Amino acid sequence: MEPDILYRAVVDLCLLLFLAQLSAEIASRLRAPKVLGILVAGTIFGPNMLGGVLVGGRPLIEFNELIYVFAEIGAVLILFTSGLEMTFMEFRSVGVCSLVTGVVDVVFSYMLVYIVTVMLGYSWTVGMIIAGALSATSIAVSALTMKELGKADTQEAKVIINAAVVDDILALTILTVILTYVRKGAPLSPLSVAQLAVSSLVLWFLILLVGVYFIPVVLDRTEKIGTGVLESMAILVCFGTAVLASILKLSPLVGAFSAGMAIASSRSLEKVRSFIANIELVFVPLFFVVMGAGIDPRAFLSGNLMLVFVFTLVAILSKVVGSGIPASFFLKDPRRGLRIGLGMISRGEIGFVIASVGLTNGILTGDIYTTLVAVVCITVLITPFLLRKSYEAEGLLERLDGLYSGLSKLGPELILKLLRRLQRHH
Amino acid sequence: MEPDILYRAVVDLCLLLFLAQLSAEIASRLRAPKVLGILVAGTIFGPNMLGGVLVGGRPLIEFNELIYVFAEIGAVLILFTSGLEMTFMEFRSVGVCSLVTGVVDVVFSYMLVYIVTVMLGYSWTVGMIIAGALSATSIAVSALTMKELGKADTQEAKVIINAAVVDDILALTILTVILTYVRKGAPLSPLSVAQLAVSSLVLWFLILLVGVYFIPVVLDRTEKIGTGVLESMAILVCFGTAVLASILKLSPLVGAFSAGMAIASSRSLEKVRSFIANIELVFVPLFFVVMGAGIDPRAFLSGNLMLVFVFTLVAILSKVVGSGIPASFFLKDPRRGLRIGLGMISRGEIGFVIASVGLTNGILTGDIYTTLVAVVCITVLITPFLLRKSYEAEGLLERLDGLYSGLSKLGPELILKLLRRLQRHH
Repeated sequence: MEPDILYRAVVDLCLLLFLAQLSAEIASRLRAPKVLGILVAGTIFGPNMLGGVLVGGRPLIEFNELIYVFAEIGAVLILFTSGLEMTFMEFRSVGVCSLVTGVVDVVFSYMLVYIVTVMLGYSWTVGMIIAGALSATSIAVSALTMKELGKADTQEAKVIINAAVVDDILALTILTVILTYVRKGAPLSPLSVAQLAVSSLVLWFLILLVGVYFIPVVLDRTEKIGTGVLESMAILVCFGTAVLASILKLSPLVGAFSAGMAIASSRSLEKVRSFIANIELVFVPLFFVVMGAGIDPRAFLSGNLMLVFVFTLVAILSKVVGSGIPASFFLKDPRRGLRIGLGMISRGEIGFVIASVGLTNGILTGDIYTTLVAVVCITVLITPFLLRKSYEAEGLLERLDGLYSGLSKLGPELILKLLRRLQRHH
Repeated sequence: MEPDILYRAVVDLCLLLFLAQLSAEIASRLRAPKVLGILVAGTIFGPNMLGGVLVGGRPLIEFNELIYVFAEIGAVLILFTSGLEMTFMEFRSVGVCSLVTGVVDVVFSYMLVYIVTVMLGYSWTVGMIIAGALSATSIAVSALTMKELGKADTQEAKVIINAAVVDDILALTILTVILTYVRKGAPLSPLSVAQLAVSSLVLWFLILLVGVYFIPVVLDRTEKIGTGVLESMAILVCFGTAVLASILKLSPLVGAFSAGMAIASSRSLEKVRSFIANIELVFVPLFFVVMGAGIDPRAFLSGNLMLVFVFTLVAILSKVVGSGIPASFFLKDPRRGLRIGLGMISRGEIGFVIASVGLTNGILTGDIYTTLVAVVCITVLITPFLLRKSYEAEGLLERLDGLYSGLSKLGPELILKLLRRLQRHH
């Protein structure tokens, strides 16, 4: 990069950071989650709206490569800090619950979306893509919202983040299955799919075990050398594990999360945590800005609004039921189970990736693709909102309690309530 | 950038950060400046030595674009924090001294190097390039060393940094003169050169005045909105002013320095300072790593060692005399004057830029270019070392005092002493 171009890129990046912080502050005064503010700032100042306005032949704010690089680093850091919040002991206490919740919610979401899609008259290949795209929770949105609400330390938060990690691993399995189908024209056998899923989960668990065993030793030794050495070792371990995970065909985010969890049991945890908290400020907001920038308001208008509505409903229902019920069972507390269900609603990058695979391979038409992107965006926007409300309005939840215990009544009624509130606020 | 490539780039970056911090720590235990440690780490793990070793067809540490981008951001942040250390009132107290020191040392260095070059039998065009490349002090090395020594608050440090800013402005004038000659084949008239130099200085002063007037107002208003907003506004102002300076044909570093100085008078100074101190950790070491990586040990061996020795001697002498004498005169203290002279020895990027212009336009042969790069590298390596020693060995300076007051005896003797010490340590 030429110095002149570089400096302009950095200025655009700083401008977006400033706008993100400003919007976070405005959102927080409106009693909305900061994450929601940053997402909206990303949409407004993104290439699809104000940022794309040409001034002297140049976009007002150029979404240059540097911004995407910082955003990607931000995503890794979000997962890394989520890991830092959780020792391996704590992980073990929520491990089974998270594993079951993650597996059940992905399978349930996949099946529900698939059935609805096919019932709407689409082919099974379209069903496979849409179901795949809507099967996995996006870890980052929920993780940061729980942190912002000061609830990162709760059992719900720990279940959400771990179940989302399981989701991520399974979603990559689904992506592999879809890519195999696209390349070979024939679907994998259910047995191979199950084998793939299990081996990915086992692989992740192995990385975690090795990390938990070795990383604290390495870190505590470097701490003796000096603080700067410790801090740089911590980020080296974070990104090193991310690369290792990606070499092993797992998501790098899952690797960063494991590295964080390993460091959580180290004596140097506090130093690492305060260092990361400081540098995060430059990277993390950009992740949500970029995510928000992906939202094209025209997509909502050009897409079939009814279809967007139906799929959003299904996307919400699939997670509230698919994660909420197993979580309620394990925690023996339907209120916290529901909260976990709400926290799992947000879909993310993996959804976009699967949708693009569908589009570029001619399985999805432009219309359905746009609809799918719109649905993913709505889930991202409402999750921080619903999570916050679920903490604020314990009273409301108490009233919902009765409803929730009766499974048959739960779905439509709760969703309608939520949607009505949503419509009032948007 | 593809995610996979990006993650590997980040890992290489983290690895370099870790090695830099480790070397800084080792240097500090050997009672050497940390900056020197990082520079040496850059050389050892740079593409010319260990980092370039191919492992499976890939360099051990790839100096990818991301690393250069981070290094460039680091350079801006170094100048920005140097500005933060200095209010406009303090600037005024050292302003005249710095202006005179900067102007005298650039003119003296240019003339001395030019005369020596021509006396060695080179053409006047070669003299022009070598003299230009060795005329200006690199701000970053001295600024960070003074900070590391805990002396950023002293009058010497303030004179060094401001004189180095004047150097930078004049060096860009020299670069413009050289580029004009290269393009048009005829040298500019002395009058145009003087006009160019004065107008650049005035322009910088205007930016500074406007900044000092407006930036604190803007910052104190954003502080009321929220801390995250303030911090992002501060870096926006920093890089915005850097870009403004570069549009006005000044160095972006000079712009960042002015922005820092403007913020130094703001009520929000402490918050900005602690924020920048935190994010600096990720960017600043990489600036020195990249600078160190530019050093090719083979250049020293393949270059004419005698010539390297002579030019290094001249480079040191020109600054110790050219800055040391005017500074001694203004501060009425030859010891602090000498220290300023030592602090100004390091040459930097602008030297490399002018040398490359000479090489690519066929004015310099590969041999002289290599020699010139080697000389710049040696000045970078010895400045932190000499500065530290000058603080440690007040006793030695007292003995030198007598020598220093007699101007005629000063030059050769002091330099020989310094060189002897240098040889002992390298």
